[in-house]
Amino acid sequence: MSDDVQAVPVHDVITVGAGPAALTAAIYTTREDIETLLFERGVIGGLAAVTDKIDNYPGFFEGIEGLTLADNLQKQAERFGAVIEFGEVTALRDEGEFKVLETTSGTMKARAVLIATGSDYKKIGVPGELEFYGRGVHYCATCDGAFYRDKTLVVVGGGNSAIQEAMFLTRFTTHIDLLVRSTIKASDVLQQDLQKYVDDGKITVHLGVATDEIVGENNSVTKVLATKTETGEKLEFTPDGVFVFVGLLPNSQFLKDTPIELDEVGLVLSNEDLQTNMPGVFVAGDIRSGATMQVASAVGEGATAALKIREYLEDRKHPVQN
Amino acid sequence: MSDDVQAVPVHDVITVGAGPAALTAAIYTTREDIETLLFERGVIGGLAAVTDKIDNYPGFFEGIEGLTLADNLQKQAERFGAVIEFGEVTALRDEGEFKVLETTSGTMKARAVLIATGSDYKKIGVPGELEFYGRGVHYCATCDGAFYRDKTLVVVGGGNSAIQEAMFLTRFTTHIDLLVRSTIKASDVLQQDLQKYVDDGKITVHLGVATDEIVGENNSVTKVLATKTETGEKLEFTPDGVFVFVGLLPNSQFLKDTPIELDEVGLVLSNEDLQTNMPGVFVAGDIRSGATMQVASAVGEGATAALKIREYLEDRKHPVQN
Repeated sequence: MSDDVQAVPVHDVITVGAGPAALTAAIYTTREDIETLLFERGVIGGLAAVTDKIDNYPGFFEGIEGLTLADNLQKQAERFGAVIEFGEVTALRDEGEFKVLETTSGTMKARAVLIATGSDYKKIGVPGELEFYGRGVHYCATCDGAFYRDKTLVVVGGGNSAIQEAMFLTRFTTHIDLLVRSTIKASDVLQQDLQKYVDDGKITVHLGVATDEIVGENNSVTKVLATKTETGEKLEFTPDGVFVFVGLLPNSQFLKDTPIELDEVGLVLSNEDLQTNMPGVFVAGDIRSGATMQVASAVGEGATAALKIREYLEDRKHPVQN
Repeated sequence: MSDDVQAVPVHDVITVGAGPAALTAAIYTTREDIETLLFERGVIGGLAAVTDKIDNYPGFFEGIEGLTLADNLQKQAERFGAVIEFGEVTALRDEGEFKVLETTSGTMKARAVLIATGSDYKKIGVPGELEFYGRGVHYCATCDGAFYRDKTLVVVGGGNSAIQEAMFLTRFTTHIDLLVRSTIKASDVLQQDLQKYVDDGKITVHLGVATDEIVGENNSVTKVLATKTETGEKLEFTPDGVFVFVGLLPNSQFLKDTPIELDEVGLVLSNEDLQTNMPGVFVAGDIRSGATMQVASAVGEGATAALKIREYLEDRKHPVQN
């Protein structure tokens, strides 16, 4: 351990990320006088903050704007003493009693760490995609599918999740155009299932079709422009909305050179106590292997993680001996 | 299967209980057109509904009254089509595709069942205990401890949880009188830890003391009356509040004659998908082994359980074949 690192003040808890899971954990820890620093590289409130309307977060019976919910969570955590700083964690190492975090604001130390960096949805990177994010362009069927009752959709993607979610969305929609860039790369069972929806006229599959642009006006999508890659033929769809299912991007890059175990897509593995294989390092929310990408679940895991962190800290440090 | 049972309509999902976990699950299932009946024997909203103020439910930054939160959850579930009925489930059996529930309203059938009956805190059964419940008498240190910053408390109990929670509460309180009916029945480590708090003057332990009555006025506790059982000597304490830690009462009696596995205190065991050892029967909230007794966690598990129930139902029933 270098002198520099020894001179660094030790936080009780540092959360990497300040989305719903981390903010909830901080509500719990700081309310119990466990000093907590939240370290965020992007937006406080995470994906929730950039979601137009969240209809299924329990307790707001008419739904709540994502930004309002994020703001409430931040106010609640800060009310009990949580501190939020901006910057990026680049490395994390175990020095026994302390965890050392290398960050863009310098070296930091904490007795316990909560990894709560979340995951992003992969984008297809076409004009209009970001502009109409949450206003016609969606990435989560469970979250936003119900807004498309008796409507038509374009679904983009050809993997397991795209096929699964397209079939799921048919419970709301009258018709779905499924745009697949090359061929379908889903399990045989899913492909057989899909065929029934195709026979039934609920889904039309377009293979070898590249999505070029999402066009809209007045806060809603009006057109999707695409190209049949083999012939160059231009296609135009006029759905009420677009769902993109081309994968997840777990924000776990900073853990690559650590011993912390990730699953095959890069999500963080944990035990029943939400503890990773590095003692004192916990995980909650959309970055956890097994996550549901739901704010309600993230919040639940944040609360549970906070209680487990408290137990961990109490097992290691007798408060009276301070 | 008898003719009677065959004639019974089949629900997609029946939740046993209508607390935060079940209501959240119902928000998710019904929003996705999975028909759901909630079956409740007591109070809609469960323990949350009878909690005065919930300070740490994420999203309400100034706290929320338990009854208001319960009411919001109910409205939200009903908005999407959830139906709540009152009555008690007395037995549950697996008939493969269907689960059969015997209830005080007759036999019911469901494709999937969510056990969400919660747990109650054991009471000591003295005058004033129920009257001042949530208004000076508490059962959850994590929930209500922070309301007693710089105050004094009486803590009742002598087991592991009583000792653990009493020590935890000292981070808020100036002094705690710990009333133990007979002797302390906690682990050696905990007893050694406790001694340090005693030496420090933070906790005074009263062994062989029976709590007789909790006295209060104007929505707060003023006195605790007790008796030294050996001598009959009357004792009087004047704390700002009382915490009782004499155990949990999991509402799992109706599962006694089923094959569903319970842990040693009677909480329901489950796998990572919150599924019990009976296929199609899931569990969430305070009745689950590993539960934290926190609304946030219950709600998170309710959301996760709903998604797992949907997967379970889709794996078994192809919607297009209907």
